[in-house]
Amino acid sequence: MISGFGQLLFALFGPLSISRSALFGIFLTVLLNNSYTVLALKSPFLPRHGGSLGSTAKDSVIKYKTLYFDQKIDHFGFHQDGTFKQRYLVNDEHWYKDGGPILFYTGNEGDITWFCNNTGFMWDVAEELKAMLVFAEHRYYGESLPFGKDSYRDPKHLNYLSSEQALADFAVLIKYLKRTVSGCQFSPVIAIGGSYGGMLSAWMRMKYPNVVVGALSASAPIWQFPDMVPCGDFYKIVTQDFTRSGLNCAANIRQSWKSIDNISVTEEGLRWLSSQFTLCSPLKKTDVSDFKAWLQETWVNLAMVDYPYEANFLQPLPRWPVQVVCTFLRFDPKTVSDHLMLVGISDAVRVYYNYTGNVPCLNLSSTATGSLGYIGWYYQACTEMVMPMCTDGVQDMFEPQEWNFQAFSDECLALFGVRPRADWANTVYGGLDIASHSNIVFSNGGLDPWSGGGVTRNISDSVVAIVIPDGAHHLDLRYNNEYDPQSVLSARAQEVEYFKLWIQQAKRKG
Amino acid sequence: MISGFGQLLFALFGPLSISRSALFGIFLTVLLNNSYTVLALKSPFLPRHGGSLGSTAKDSVIKYKTLYFDQKIDHFGFHQDGTFKQRYLVNDEHWYKDGGPILFYTGNEGDITWFCNNTGFMWDVAEELKAMLVFAEHRYYGESLPFGKDSYRDPKHLNYLSSEQALADFAVLIKYLKRTVSGCQFSPVIAIGGSYGGMLSAWMRMKYPNVVVGALSASAPIWQFPDMVPCGDFYKIVTQDFTRSGLNCAANIRQSWKSIDNISVTEEGLRWLSSQFTLCSPLKKTDVSDFKAWLQETWVNLAMVDYPYEANFLQPLPRWPVQVVCTFLRFDPKTVSDHLMLVGISDAVRVYYNYTGNVPCLNLSSTATGSLGYIGWYYQACTEMVMPMCTDGVQDMFEPQEWNFQAFSDECLALFGVRPRADWANTVYGGLDIASHSNIVFSNGGLDPWSGGGVTRNISDSVVAIVIPDGAHHLDLRYNNEYDPQSVLSARAQEVEYFKLWIQQAKRKG
Repeated sequence: MISGFGQLLFALFGPLSISRSALFGIFLTVLLNNSYTVLALKSPFLPRHGGSLGSTAKDSVIKYKTLYFDQKIDHFGFHQDGTFKQRYLVNDEHWYKDGGPILFYTGNEGDITWFCNNTGFMWDVAEELKAMLVFAEHRYYGESLPFGKDSYRDPKHLNYLSSEQALADFAVLIKYLKRTVSGCQFSPVIAIGGSYGGMLSAWMRMKYPNVVVGALSASAPIWQFPDMVPCGDFYKIVTQDFTRSGLNCAANIRQSWKSIDNISVTEEGLRWLSSQFTLCSPLKKTDVSDFKAWLQETWVNLAMVDYPYEANFLQPLPRWPVQVVCTFLRFDPKTVSDHLMLVGISDAVRVYYNYTGNVPCLNLSSTATGSLGYIGWYYQACTEMVMPMCTDGVQDMFEPQEWNFQAFSDECLALFGVRPRADWANTVYGGLDIASHSNIVFSNGGLDPWSGGGVTRNISDSVVAIVIPDGAHHLDLRYNNEYDPQSVLSARAQEVEYFKLWIQQAKRKG
Repeated sequence: MISGFGQLLFALFGPLSISRSALFGIFLTVLLNNSYTVLALKSPFLPRHGGSLGSTAKDSVIKYKTLYFDQKIDHFGFHQDGTFKQRYLVNDEHWYKDGGPILFYTGNEGDITWFCNNTGFMWDVAEELKAMLVFAEHRYYGESLPFGKDSYRDPKHLNYLSSEQALADFAVLIKYLKRTVSGCQFSPVIAIGGSYGGMLSAWMRMKYPNVVVGALSASAPIWQFPDMVPCGDFYKIVTQDFTRSGLNCAANIRQSWKSIDNISVTEEGLRWLSSQFTLCSPLKKTDVSDFKAWLQETWVNLAMVDYPYEANFLQPLPRWPVQVVCTFLRFDPKTVSDHLMLVGISDAVRVYYNYTGNVPCLNLSSTATGSLGYIGWYYQACTEMVMPMCTDGVQDMFEPQEWNFQAFSDECLALFGVRPRADWANTVYGGLDIASHSNIVFSNGGLDPWSGGGVTRNISDSVVAIVIPDGAHHLDLRYNNEYDPQSVLSARAQEVEYFKLWIQQAKRKG
């Protein structure tokens, strides 16, 4: 499905090629209408570099029914009255069939089976809560394509890709389940999601409190929007992770950009870099900014998945991968040569890209067509999900780059024919002012760069924050693991207690 | 403006002619694509029979600035990125210019100046609250036309007429005012509206609690949707008003339909009816159902505006107009002849249509092109605002008519090219389950038929109901009047106390 769709995008948008430069992380250069445009887009959630879709369940193979629901393409207008098949996955083996709760995963920007497989927490607690599990796919991702193969054809077909439409999908689907599934009518529904899916679960409770009794919003940067948090926090947290994971580690990465500049001025240097990093394609002078952006993204991804055990979320990785990376970066940045610096860097990135030892070469441009999710998310970032990021090279280990909304907007117009609306998310989802809502748990990991845009303090008695100091990106949503730190075990226990409280409240009311 | 637009609609939709029959009140027959279709649409709020747009301020002429804001045509999609001029009216003569509150009227389905002039309550309390008054026009009404003259051209242009878009307009406008008007940044905003505008004010607080600190939702039938309240309540309340307003009054109206049937079988009878009712056009056999629907609507409108003083809301009327009407309907329904019955009915309706004595003849079809609001509201009723109504002739004084959603839906398709979504309002606005919200006052008048779909019991400490037993349609929103019953004075006082409470809460938080 994904790869076929990638080919389709290729055919529709023209040849995609990654050409990163140094705005603030990730750039996507797309040959569109025969002109190159640079798109500055941080993809916050989906892996750009592969990422297995296989099950990550520990011991057992998880089982679910795959179902489809006819959703309206447009919930907010009536001219377009068509429907599409929204995929959702259901497991009810532990469900108490007379009003037992429903744990409802509000799908992110990708194939729902992947999120289903990577949200072991729901599988772990289903029996205790006698809960039905539902994983609902987000429109425009996976198989839930409003216009089938044409969904990404042009701005007209992309028009119904928005968080508001996705939330309405979830609400309508839940109402449908309550109406049609025997025993469901009085089932309290709890929204659960991680990352963008966590933003959706929180917003679901905010916008549809009649449909879900509460929400667990894990590692959800609902404040990573303009004028809510400093744009530099994200990369500061990445840097802190590397700082605490090994002597000189962040300092060397901060220094490495200069080493790349020094080495890459000569053809010989470029050849050496290509060889030392075992790149699949020789590095050209014009690729250097892409090369840096690729490295920058690697450090970001490592921080996101700095889990305490071997895992395969974005890549197969050892336990505490940032610590492993940092073992290659212990030298003194003041005295190390450019070459030795980059030998260390190359060894370090290989932890991320070649932990299995089976990868013959590293590919800077392998990600753009790798997953449908990217293009969809880029469109969302180019419309509602405007998430400013910046670096200063002082509080973080990256080359300084300001946030430039106008340039970003121009790139979005060139790529998708739309302009982002910087203020909309703040208006529609409440910004910092969310105190009037209820029954939302925001969980965040201290190691997770996205925690910078997350809710990490209690807002009220029932809009609460759980911080997992040694947790990376939504560690709490993953399966229990023997190497889990106490903090995540405690977080999960609290989360379950909140679920029980909300279920009790609903039963009392009902 | 209005009349020009009426002509435009005429040109676009073809000749409009009212042809009422007896489904449940008001029917609109429209010659569309050369075929007649009957549309069963209850227009809940706007007058169909004229209605002065002139000021109804008691002593003083109210003053406001007329301003325009560039609103996005589509808040929920990015392909249509155009803007239109949304009109809004501002008075800040009493405003405390450093954080004083804003009373924000969430405009209904009509010209905002008319609502501004008929919401004297806001003008009466502005000084005490040191409040700025803002009256925001609802898109597609008055001057706030997303596509100018083409706004009603076809389903494509009508696509952005929805309550969700209107709420987003209000939210974006308020954010804009806070950002740009000096002293506004920390001004608590209270949403106020009556009727459909009251539904919007309540929904505004539910969906945008970050934008408004509370809402007064006056005479707002937020539960007049499928499966929330019995479909017969509306007409039951109309009937109760007539029952209590005079001996035999409702019984005679209930009997009158049969008298019309009896008289109208002959050509002579039709001529007599035309003469007795001083109709502008002679009644034909095929007009009889329209004639009955016109009468039915007259009784409904009288119940809605049964105010305790002379007023000119829908029509110039005496105080307690239903009592005046009932003075003509005191005879014994068991013994009265059909002719005497209808003499009484004709005198009764003349109270409504010719209180001034200046109306030369009564026009059954004068309303359809009289106001832009109707077509817009019919479209809304044909999409989101599905409000079931029915009569049984036993608990009410009308001819029995069941609610028939399928027929209604077919009519909507024929007229507008859209089908209503019966369940959507319940899903998106919470239905009966609104207890998790806060800071909403629902006020309802006991005489108002729309109170049947309103919130008339306290839902929680901060979602509360105020009932005004001898109040008609949003009497509390009108200017103070010497004839006001104690119940409405008390209601207004409570409403102001809630405003003060919400303002205090906001100041403490801010």
